[in-house]
Amino acid sequence: MLDELRGIVGDRYLLSGDATGPWASDITGKPPQPPLAVARPADTAEVQALVRACAATATPIVPAGGRTGLTGATAAGGALVISLDRLNRVRDLRAEARVAVAEAGVILSTLHDLVAEQGLMFPLTFGARGSAMVGGFLSTNAGGSNVLKYGNTRDLVLGIEAVMPDGSLLDLMSGLRKNNAGYDLRHLMIGAEGTLGIITAATLKLVPLPKAWATAMLALPDMETALQVLNEVQEATGGGVEACEYMPGDYVANYQAMRPAAAWPFEGRHDVNVLLELGATSAEEAAPGPDGAIPLVSRLESILGGLLEQGRLIDAVVARTEAQRRAMWDRREAAAEVAATRPLRRTNDIAVDLDRMPEFIRRADAVLQRTDPGAERSIVAHLGDGNIHYTVWPTSGDDARNDAVTEAIEEIVTEMRGSFSAEHGIGTYKLNSMRRRKDPVALRTMRAIKDALDPQGIMNPGKLLP
Amino acid sequence: MLDELRGIVGDRYLLSGDATGPWASDITGKPPQPPLAVARPADTAEVQALVRACAATATPIVPAGGRTGLTGATAAGGALVISLDRLNRVRDLRAEARVAVAEAGVILSTLHDLVAEQGLMFPLTFGARGSAMVGGFLSTNAGGSNVLKYGNTRDLVLGIEAVMPDGSLLDLMSGLRKNNAGYDLRHLMIGAEGTLGIITAATLKLVPLPKAWATAMLALPDMETALQVLNEVQEATGGGVEACEYMPGDYVANYQAMRPAAAWPFEGRHDVNVLLELGATSAEEAAPGPDGAIPLVSRLESILGGLLEQGRLIDAVVARTEAQRRAMWDRREAAAEVAATRPLRRTNDIAVDLDRMPEFIRRADAVLQRTDPGAERSIVAHLGDGNIHYTVWPTSGDDARNDAVTEAIEEIVTEMRGSFSAEHGIGTYKLNSMRRRKDPVALRTMRAIKDALDPQGIMNPGKLLP
Repeated sequence: MLDELRGIVGDRYLLSGDATGPWASDITGKPPQPPLAVARPADTAEVQALVRACAATATPIVPAGGRTGLTGATAAGGALVISLDRLNRVRDLRAEARVAVAEAGVILSTLHDLVAEQGLMFPLTFGARGSAMVGGFLSTNAGGSNVLKYGNTRDLVLGIEAVMPDGSLLDLMSGLRKNNAGYDLRHLMIGAEGTLGIITAATLKLVPLPKAWATAMLALPDMETALQVLNEVQEATGGGVEACEYMPGDYVANYQAMRPAAAWPFEGRHDVNVLLELGATSAEEAAPGPDGAIPLVSRLESILGGLLEQGRLIDAVVARTEAQRRAMWDRREAAAEVAATRPLRRTNDIAVDLDRMPEFIRRADAVLQRTDPGAERSIVAHLGDGNIHYTVWPTSGDDARNDAVTEAIEEIVTEMRGSFSAEHGIGTYKLNSMRRRKDPVALRTMRAIKDALDPQGIMNPGKLLP
Repeated sequence: MLDELRGIVGDRYLLSGDATGPWASDITGKPPQPPLAVARPADTAEVQALVRACAATATPIVPAGGRTGLTGATAAGGALVISLDRLNRVRDLRAEARVAVAEAGVILSTLHDLVAEQGLMFPLTFGARGSAMVGGFLSTNAGGSNVLKYGNTRDLVLGIEAVMPDGSLLDLMSGLRKNNAGYDLRHLMIGAEGTLGIITAATLKLVPLPKAWATAMLALPDMETALQVLNEVQEATGGGVEACEYMPGDYVANYQAMRPAAAWPFEGRHDVNVLLELGATSAEEAAPGPDGAIPLVSRLESILGGLLEQGRLIDAVVARTEAQRRAMWDRREAAAEVAATRPLRRTNDIAVDLDRMPEFIRRADAVLQRTDPGAERSIVAHLGDGNIHYTVWPTSGDDARNDAVTEAIEEIVTEMRGSFSAEHGIGTYKLNSMRRRKDPVALRTMRAIKDALDPQGIMNPGKLLP
């Protein structure tokens, strides 16, 4: 078997034994699971040949990209890892049509840099952008900070190319904005975590790169007001809000404890803090006036001034320099670091309806207080997406009690018709939640699709579906 | 069988014999195909009971809504028609969360009116809005005039509820903006034309209703410039373009011949005419100034003035009154009427990449000229979507030659990796195109999904899949 695989990719690109070490573990720190081998194909045809060889011998396959996922979806014990890292060409970039055609191994930040040269942006962005690859972020339908304005990954994909479990090539590589010819297989493959096939390339939607930003920290009386303020700023700017990130007072205090040199955003301390950012695509809004002021920034100041007068805001600070803007973003982007400042933690990647976020937080806090008094939590949230990262710092490593907290939080989510996995996916870690919490008809339907398309069950087995 | 069905919906709502007449034909004017019966269930539970009864006897089912589709997808000879028209409740409307929960039988224009009372808009719109229903426009993933800014139907749907072919209820009724818990069955059901189950309700995304519009007719030297101008106006307005509709000179002339009283848009005649519309969601942009001018309109005039100076535009007229705006829109929306002014016509609902529209039109015109010299065509296009409605007026009813023209046009589309059904769907009319033109692996994958979810093949048989 290994000889056959070696014949496909060449000796240099078939790794076995110790050389597979880096693929045996991932950033989640679980115990290593050595793969059978790691193949690093050069192109789509080699991926097809590898999959055909595995299909003939019912060998399990685990596709891998930057391996920055958070749910153990690339765990590969005993499987052939197909690493897409050498499929790293941007096949086409057409500025007028606002599309880029990128292979599965293109790194997100590489793509960002390339399209920025044309004054364009691929809007998906998140902390792992320096290592995450196209195939991976499509397979997990990654989210991030710009979802409010531009959508999740799936909203940014016009076409895909994928190798199916029998090695055939599914060619949906169009740059079309409209195509109503049959079932939308593109959306089926996106977010399938490699369980239905291997995405090898995608046609991605680009947007104009903002020429300037206006970024502010707001302090508000409560989250209900925060959502109203977001809606009003959206109306006042024609949907110009690029990001709206919620940080409660205790999160800001914990951040401050970790970075004592960082400036406190306001004179006082407030329970509800929001980072709000607008982007300017027009030269008119972005060009500094005779007084040096950027019109977009002046506009935001004027909107916020009105809201302050109405008593809707407690306080507001607008970034005057790029350094001030970066400081505001660091406060938000350090969330994973803040969570890691204490040894034990349980993360919950929750989504609820936009107007039900305060209710979720109140109920989750009550559960935590009742089940593990003395436990603390760290929250950040994408306010415009209803997505709450609710990290629990339990008082001890008592697994039974900590599981009970997770269970109780998921029970609230279920009652509120929310999601127990808003943007991270299922992988292996959320399989129990999937079994217990997902609509049974949906689960049955997914299983029927999986069995129909991958009857041998070789594509990323043991992931996504219980 | 009919007695059992009657027992489910009640005598009054089970129609048979002559009473089924209205469901035997549709607006496409094909010969009538009498259904077995028509059931008009009151709610989702009755839909489930009907489907269970049909599943037990392998009776084919055709779901029906407003029946304004253009591809014969509700042809119902011998089948039980399940009409969703009585599922016409708006179950919930939450303005702050920007969602409406509407049942399958809610009429699009009813929904428009209801949400407008809250200052909101459900952006999907097209000519048949007075009769098209939620279940129908989801099942066809309808397009229309606002796709450029707001996307197709599928981009406006947060959750769905559907009755599966065994009568079970698929409950994906969330209002979540993010949910990465397994395969995206919502997108699979949307656009499936009722072949995988019956959508009974949906959670729909709402946006702020524009407080004012700025609408202009532009004359341009060529389509390439038109696309550049669109991109520049998008940048200048932060993506504020609500519609961008292309009409060639001969279309405008044909419209003018049909409506001799309508004003000619420009002093001269031009080959490339574009209707461009911006929307204002902020009071600031929408409120008339001391001189009576609406700031958004002034802004558009200033942008167009700059483009005229650069020689990018030949001419431009901005609507100063709602009557002028309506006249501009009538010119575009009368496209179906214009096409019907001559007895024979063949329609083609094409999509190509944005920057390849001129190439498609040049090549299609050349084919037409070669295959049927003397034939004429009528074109309108959604410029920002790459969607071209290319209607042929052949010189005669010679079916073989007219089929050859359609074939040749589709061959161009295939070569350009475009779509032979951009927004109308497949139904029964495009089955041949689907068989010949769709990627064979995609077809095989669709068939495997259909067989897995509907093993008896009772859900809208003979539609969408060859």
